[in-house]
Amino acid sequence: MESRSGPAREFEHEHQEAGSTINDSMTTKERILLRSLELFNEKGERHITTNHVAADLSISPGNLYYHYRSKQAIIYEIFTHYERLVDHYLQLPDRALSVQDEFDYLDSVFDGLWSYRFLHRDLYHYLDADPRLKTEYGQFTGRCLDRLEEIISCLEHSGILTFDPRPGAAHTTSAATLKRTLALNVWLVVTNWMSFLVSSIEVEGGTLSIRHMKSGIHQALAIQEPYVTEAYAEEVARLAADYPNYSSVGAGTSKMVSRKAQASF
Amino acid sequence: MESRSGPAREFEHEHQEAGSTINDSMTTKERILLRSLELFNEKGERHITTNHVAADLSISPGNLYYHYRSKQAIIYEIFTHYERLVDHYLQLPDRALSVQDEFDYLDSVFDGLWSYRFLHRDLYHYLDADPRLKTEYGQFTGRCLDRLEEIISCLEHSGILTFDPRPGAAHTTSAATLKRTLALNVWLVVTNWMSFLVSSIEVEGGTLSIRHMKSGIHQALAIQEPYVTEAYAEEVARLAADYPNYSSVGAGTSKMVSRKAQASF
Repeated sequence: MESRSGPAREFEHEHQEAGSTINDSMTTKERILLRSLELFNEKGERHITTNHVAADLSISPGNLYYHYRSKQAIIYEIFTHYERLVDHYLQLPDRALSVQDEFDYLDSVFDGLWSYRFLHRDLYHYLDADPRLKTEYGQFTGRCLDRLEEIISCLEHSGILTFDPRPGAAHTTSAATLKRTLALNVWLVVTNWMSFLVSSIEVEGGTLSIRHMKSGIHQALAIQEPYVTEAYAEEVARLAADYPNYSSVGAGTSKMVSRKAQASF
Repeated sequence: MESRSGPAREFEHEHQEAGSTINDSMTTKERILLRSLELFNEKGERHITTNHVAADLSISPGNLYYHYRSKQAIIYEIFTHYERLVDHYLQLPDRALSVQDEFDYLDSVFDGLWSYRFLHRDLYHYLDADPRLKTEYGQFTGRCLDRLEEIISCLEHSGILTFDPRPGAAHTTSAATLKRTLALNVWLVVTNWMSFLVSSIEVEGGTLSIRHMKSGIHQALAIQEPYVTEAYAEEVARLAADYPNYSSVGAGTSKMVSRKAQASF
């Protein structure tokens, strides 16, 4: 599909890497990193020591220590991979953005968050424990916010979004401030979606899936929905319909702990 | 002020409690709870043991243990206070809601989040460690979302918000789904604002203030801004102007780690 030649194709390439499993061509260092990521995601980082990782890979603790002096060093290197992946996802193509591009951005970012999902669960603990990570994460956040704002501006230039004042609407802030505020809200909703799901729903079998995760795409879309132009409203709605929304995910596979939701079951 | 007789007045009463300091009329149990909250907020819960709290209050560890068997028990009881406070803040008065009411809701909830700010920094750790807290927090979240949705509906009935389709707007979802989605986005932005600030800005002296915290009010308002009716747009803008926004807080007292922000300093 022509419209998927920008961010989408690159994403698919990268995502295969993020979702890859350990194979014989990997160095020991790469295997340590990938297996640590898998174990942190599956079991929770707090429950996994470097000795667990070494035992799982059938290498000695000394061999692991040769490559990484601490679990913190592994977490830091995992973060740098995550950071590069998200930076890559949020690149702007050398052409006007389409509605499909916007969905590809959201889809790929949620895939990235899923692949590195342990990071955002305990992020503030990692930042407290590692000043270097805190500084780099702050820079990464600033860079992502700048990029999200650029994407919003490009969608405006493509005629998909508009920030012109409309009769009846309360555009009390400048378009520039509005775009910055929207970018920040998208960031807050997207990066905290996983933790919200974990704290608010009880999934049968106790395991969240990428399907639960992607219900967050509707939440991110809702922030910009009022600014979608009439010409593109139908296309946005059509592409959004491919994603489960929070209530359907909750009703289908999990028990949402809410009086209303409980009453309707 | 007549318009502050609802949630606002009750908030002011409650907040004095939340912001109170230890005094002679308190029981030992109350003093342990309040001092733990203060120390967790100031120093970080991970750095405070029950022995620190006992020493700070000049009581024996055995005396503290008589009231609370573990730090987890203290955290759980602090959470129940927080929960009651927020439930109280989000009550609906027996009359139509005004614009001032909406600001009172936001202002009081941010005050509550500030008074109990340690809770949301490490929330997912506490939920993992205490199944009872996880269940109750899930119920609390569901209840708050229901209440936020009711507040949005009441603001609609007062004519302050409208969810009628407008020409040019992409209202592709039903008004009911839209209100639920908005309520959830407000919740995500508000409850994660503090952690975002901690991870993304470096405050001079290293201490965040309630002023930084309240810059989040603009982020929450931005989610509903497109739905404010023309009749109330000016009043919303006037009341919003009383609060600092993120960029002014960042530029004034802290260094935001962003290429754009750095370039403009």
